[in-house]
Order: sequence, then structure tokens, then C-alpha cells
Amino acid sequence: MPTINHQVRLAARPSGLPGAEVWKHTEEPVGEPGAGEVLVQVMLLSLDPAMRGWMNEARSYVPPVKLGAVMRATGVGRVVASGDERFAPGDHVSGMLGAQEYATLRGDHLLKVDPAVAPLTTHVGALGMTGMTAYFGLLDVGALKEGDTVVVSGAAGAVGSIAGQIAKVKGARVIGIAGGPEKCAWLTDELGFDAAVDYKAENVRRALREHAPDGIDVYFDNVGGEILDAALANLAMHARVVICGAISQYNAPGEMRGPANYMALLVTRSRMEGFLVFDYADRYAQAGAELARWIAEGRIVAREEVVDGGIAAFGDALLKLFAGENTGKLVLRVAEE
Amino acid sequence: MPTINHQVRLAARPSGLPGAEVWKHTEEPVGEPGAGEVLVQVMLLSLDPAMRGWMNEARSYVPPVKLGAVMRATGVGRVVASGDERFAPGDHVSGMLGAQEYATLRGDHLLKVDPAVAPLTTHVGALGMTGMTAYFGLLDVGALKEGDTVVVSGAAGAVGSIAGQIAKVKGARVIGIAGGPEKCAWLTDELGFDAAVDYKAENVRRALREHAPDGIDVYFDNVGGEILDAALANLAMHARVVICGAISQYNAPGEMRGPANYMALLVTRSRMEGFLVFDYADRYAQAGAELARWIAEGRIVAREEVVDGGIAAFGDALLKLFAGENTGKLVLRVAEE
Repeated sequence: MPTINHQVRLAARPSGLPGAEVWKHTEEPVGEPGAGEVLVQVMLLSLDPAMRGWMNEARSYVPPVKLGAVMRATGVGRVVASGDERFAPGDHVSGMLGAQEYATLRGDHLLKVDPAVAPLTTHVGALGMTGMTAYFGLLDVGALKEGDTVVVSGAAGAVGSIAGQIAKVKGARVIGIAGGPEKCAWLTDELGFDAAVDYKAENVRRALREHAPDGIDVYFDNVGGEILDAALANLAMHARVVICGAISQYNAPGEMRGPANYMALLVTRSRMEGFLVFDYADRYAQAGAELARWIAEGRIVAREEVVDGGIAAFGDALLKLFAGENTGKLVLRVAEE
Repeated sequence: MPTINHQVRLAARPSGLPGAEVWKHTEEPVGEPGAGEVLVQVMLLSLDPAMRGWMNEARSYVPPVKLGAVMRATGVGRVVASGDERFAPGDHVSGMLGAQEYATLRGDHLLKVDPAVAPLTTHVGALGMTGMTAYFGLLDVGALKEGDTVVVSGAAGAVGSIAGQIAKVKGARVIGIAGGPEKCAWLTDELGFDAAVDYKAENVRRALREHAPDGIDVYFDNVGGEILDAALANLAMHARVVICGAISQYNAPGEMRGPANYMALLVTRSRMEGFLVFDYADRYAQAGAELARWIAEGRIVAREEVVDGGIAAFGDALLKLFAGENTGKLVLRVAEE
């Protein structure tokens, strides 16, 4: 049995980027799991833009992380000890493990993952909530149809890269928006996107008009801000704008920037719709099987960028995410296999 | 046969409110209609917020009114002479007549109206495009269900007052937002709204939270700006935000104000959708019959505010609209019956 659990707790609510001052590193003894509980060694943690919202005081779709509490985080780990007969030591599981080395959760809140299907990092990314978000956002909320012109922002990020590739599998024309020539080259050369727009170097509104002269049928937005406005200015008739995130705004000072071009929804008879992946929980298994098949067939490339350094590196890894430094899914390795 | 047609033409594109300097008053001889054409004496013109957009240079859902052209306007008139066998002198018709005393149009572009069903002013309002906009926006785009909590902005205006009353007919709880105590009293005392919020005197966000503690299911927006943000902050789960107009922004200097609270769409899994009434043309007759029945039954009050002064008063009447001075449908009387 392990004895010490190192944890990262929220010490203060950030204003702007969450620097080292918002975290408190603590340690606790590791206890035996009670009846119905499972003790999990955290191996990998997912770094998600949504985490920034969880750190704010205002209630959103989930309550804020309380000051002093272990930071909320999903991840994959290995069962160390179990008071739930469905889980045995050595099993791999995913769930809301938190930013710590060991998590004790009720078995009901864990899902088994199969390392034979894909590497554990992929279970955090394309086969985890990341992939589910891309899948249901694009296909259900975006109501993607074959032949649609799809634009994805944050396209080299975790959700965006999978969303764009699902759109390709489904027969769409796909344009990705990302920051920098390397990310853009990755989209077109490795992932098969039809075009990529480098928002750091190009006028996005004009570039979208060139790449989507007949307009955008589905816009999958991860970033908000000016890029959302550029996409709204280029909608096709009856377009679907999927609001998945707004990473450009999460650390910005002052009020959120709203989409000034929202009246394009009227001109083009389009809709803008938000969603949360949790609402699709009863279909995770079906979507996961489909995604695993596409990955196995080489039709979807699941790329993860792994940050080492253990749980102590959690805060720095999150800053890397908000700096847009990652390509694909950003994962923190808390423990080696 | 009349001989002179007085017209109001767009002389300059406005910046901000369209003052007298943007209009040119002209006169032309009235000609005989050609084959397939109908000469109509304009009796009533509809004053619509959308007119402001038509005066801008940018193409929207329709091309801009050209500089020097007769200002685009819908209205009701009486046939003077006809080269189309479907229309006879004395018939009442509606169509895109323009800001002038006499219009010559192809018969295909006119609809007959029956003065026995309702006064002609009502054919411009609740039984015209105003009523159609309220009907399809609320029922089709808003997907109103019995028991929904509905909020309408610009609720004492032409479209808003009809939309709110349709919602009542359909069994919803209805809260109207309007400017000033008289308009608010009209909504609750005469139209049967469940509550009214005076945006000039109240904190709209807080008032909506009080009147709709379980959240807004359908928000029918005619105004945009801060009121749209206040509504977004109070959405129920799976809400529908219907974008009908944004009158608060049409004459504002600089860029449109986008809804800063649009991420509420994600938190509440809601959608925001735009529409144009023209897309529902094949159902106008059905909707018109239903609206006429509700009006006849006293379930919908159709109120019009008529500006006299003839075609020369067109510009002033439009300013009255943008100043929010009208209650119900604002109509310009160009000629007496």
C-alpha cells in the first residue's frame, strides 16, 4: 500500500491566467477504501480548457471548485485496492480523479478502460471525454451532413483535431483554424484537413471566405472572440454553430467578448447551440467503439502531448494549455505504468 | 386617373438615426399600368425596424436600397387600374409598395386583402408581415410548448405584442419587456401578459430572475444589446432564443454589441436561432386565418398607431419608431379610404 498522496488544491481564485499563486501543494495519508469505494493510483490527468471555468466563483454547469479543495480533473489510473467487487487491483479505470496521486471514489463513478484497445493516453484523449465532446458536438449538435463545409477552431487542440477528423470520415470538407505554421501543416499533412488557416498570420475572415466561398455549414467553435465573429461573417444558409468552448476568453480581463456578428444568424437563418458532453453519457459506449474503430483503421490520428514531472507539474501544464503550446491532447503523466 | 406620384427616395446613407438629410422628396407622373401590371394607390405603409438595415450599404438578406431609389416599404393600397385580370379597380391589396403615393407592380407581387375581415391597418400589422413574423418566430423557431415561460423584448411593439399574445393563446406564461409604465400596464392589463418589466426603470436581469425563477424557456428578442444579455443570464435548460431583431443596435455608433453572455447557451444546452418570415410564405394563408380567428374571438388585441400627414411624414414616422414612441404597430396613413 502507498502511504502518501500528494495533491494540488485551489488556494485562490485566479484573475486572468492561473499562476502558481492559486495552487497549494499538500499531502495526506492514503487510506484503505471503504465498502463500495475504490482506491485508484492516478496515472494520467486530462488538461482541459473547461478547468479555468471551474476555478471561478460563479456556478456554471457544475459548482465551482471550493477554495482549499483538490482541483477537479478527469484522468486514468490503476486500481490499488477495492471495496467494490466490480473492480480489482490492477484494473485500469477513468473518472473524475482530481489533481492528486491517489483518488478514493465510489465504484459507481468509475469506468473501466481497456489498455489493449489503445494506449492509456488515448483513453484520456480521443477515447475519453475529449473524443466524446468532438463526436456529439459535431454529429448531434452540428447535425453534420455529407458534403457539408465544416470549420473547426482550436483545430490542432484536443477536441478540435478529433472533430475535424470525424467530419472528414463523414464526408465533409474541413477547414481548421490554428495558431502557427506547424499546427496548420499538421492539420493538412497528417490529419487530412482540406485547408488550414493560421490565425496568427492571416486575416481569418478573409481566409474563410476564400476557403469556403459557398459559406460554412457547420462551425465548431472552441475559441470564441474574434474568430467566432469571423466565422459568423461567413455562414452558409441554415448553418449550425456549435458552441463547445471559448478558450480565447477564459483568461481575458473584464467582460467576455460577445459575438458582434450574431445577427448573421438571422440573415442566414442559422442557429448557434451549446452543449455539454455529460448529457450524452448513455451513448458514450457506442461513440467510443466507433472512435476506436476509426483509430484502428488509421482514419483518425489520436495524438497526445504528454507532460512529465508528476503531480507537481500540474499548474505549469495548465498554463501550457492556455498558451496554446500543445498540439493534440495535452496530458499530465502523474505516474509511470 | 391620378396624375402626380409623390415619393420618398433615399438620398444618402445614414450614420446613426436617419434624419431628414437622408431623404429626397420627388414627384413623377403616374402612368398607365402595362400588361400584367397593376397601379395601386398606397393607403397605408408599415414602419419596420428592418428598414434601417435596408438603408445601409452592406448587403444583408436583401440588397440595400439603392441611393436615389424610392425607399422600400410594405403596405396596403387600392387598385386604381389593372393590366392583370386577377385584380380590378377598387380591390385592396398588400405588397412591397414603396414610400410613395402610387405604385406600379406586377400582379404576381401583390396579395388581395379583405377589408371585411379586419380594418386595413390590421392587414398592415397583425394580419400582415408583423403577425406572420410573430407567429412563425414563436411557434416554429421558438418551438413553443404549453407551460413554457416566454420572455418577449420590444413587447409593446408590433411584433412583440402579437408574439406575447400568441404565447398566451398557446398556454405559456409570458413576461414582456418594454420601456415605460404605460407600455408595461398595457401589456399586463390589456393584453393579458403575466408580468412586464420596464427596462427604463428596472434592472432587467434581476427582474427576469424574479419573474422567471425557473428560467426562460423561449426568449423572443427584438432588441439585442444589454437586454439580450440579461435574458441569456436567465435561461432555463434547453431554452430557445429567437433572434427576430436588434433595434437597440441599428442606430448605435460603431460595431454591434454582441451578447457577452452567449456561453449561457453551453451551460444551459440552449440554442439561439435567427429566421426571416419570407421563408414561411407558403404558410402565410394558414397563419393569417388563425390570427384572424384569434382577433375575432378577442383573444388577440391588434393595436395600431396611425401617423397622419401623408407620404411627406414618412421620415418623421420612422424616427418615431426608433425612439420607441409607438405602442403596437406603427403605420403611416398615406391616403384616406
